[in-house]
Amino acid sequence: VAHEAGNLNDLRAILGNDVAMKAYREGKLPFPDGTIIARLAWEYVSSEENNKVFGRAQSFVAGSPTNDQFMVKDSKKYAATGGWGFAQFKDGKPDDEAAHKTRFSCHEPAKAHDFVFTRYAP
Amino acid sequence: VAHEAGNLNDLRAILGNDVAMKAYREGKLPFPDGTIIARLAWEYVSSEENNKVFGRAQSFVAGSPTNDQFMVKDSKKYAATGGWGFAQFKDGKPDDEAAHKTRFSCHEPAKAHDFVFTRYAP
Repeated sequence: VAHEAGNLNDLRAILGNDVAMKAYREGKLPFPDGTIIARLAWEYVSSEENNKVFGRAQSFVAGSPTNDQFMVKDSKKYAATGGWGFAQFKDGKPDDEAAHKTRFSCHEPAKAHDFVFTRYAP
Repeated sequence: VAHEAGNLNDLRAILGNDVAMKAYREGKLPFPDGTIIARLAWEYVSSEENNKVFGRAQSFVAGSPTNDQFMVKDSKKYAATGGWGFAQFKDGKPDDEAAHKTRFSCHEPAKAHDFVFTRYAP
């Protein structure tokens, strides 16, 4: 779970399949083949309904979905990009191949953590 | 997924079992018996690691867990509190019975929505 402010200004949920969660819990790096990590995001919206209850503007909830991103680990198939395949969907439709090729460079700053930004929060 | 600012200042994830999710998707109210809704929360923490990548302070992630809350629907067992049983856990330990009895009044402002604040975000 995270809030990305700035230009993105979204609320996001990060999910992992069983392989991903096992590696996270054991603190194992790099993530093994078969890892799938999903990032869902929604607009960061102030909830007037909840704020009325609290008597002040403090409640921010998920609005319309923005886009969904996936990372899939296959060290052979995606050898050129750290073993990760990247995908982004908007309104259920995937971005084109050219857009997907740009994702790896976005994740390079997280190289020390196998190109994954999200850390485990128990 | 939500960010509750103010005194709470947390990031939260709201989960539902199959019964809850079916009712949410169908927009069905009141929630049927067997519904379980869970609310997990963590401290709202600025991520220095991510901010360095973005070049500005925009990334907020889940820190230490604060507490977890549950609502369980059983219209007979919990008839006195709108059909809902409430529970809160901190560090894996439940609050005492007296504390649990105060929860229903917190949820009364959401009466028009069967005492549940969280709305469905597809």
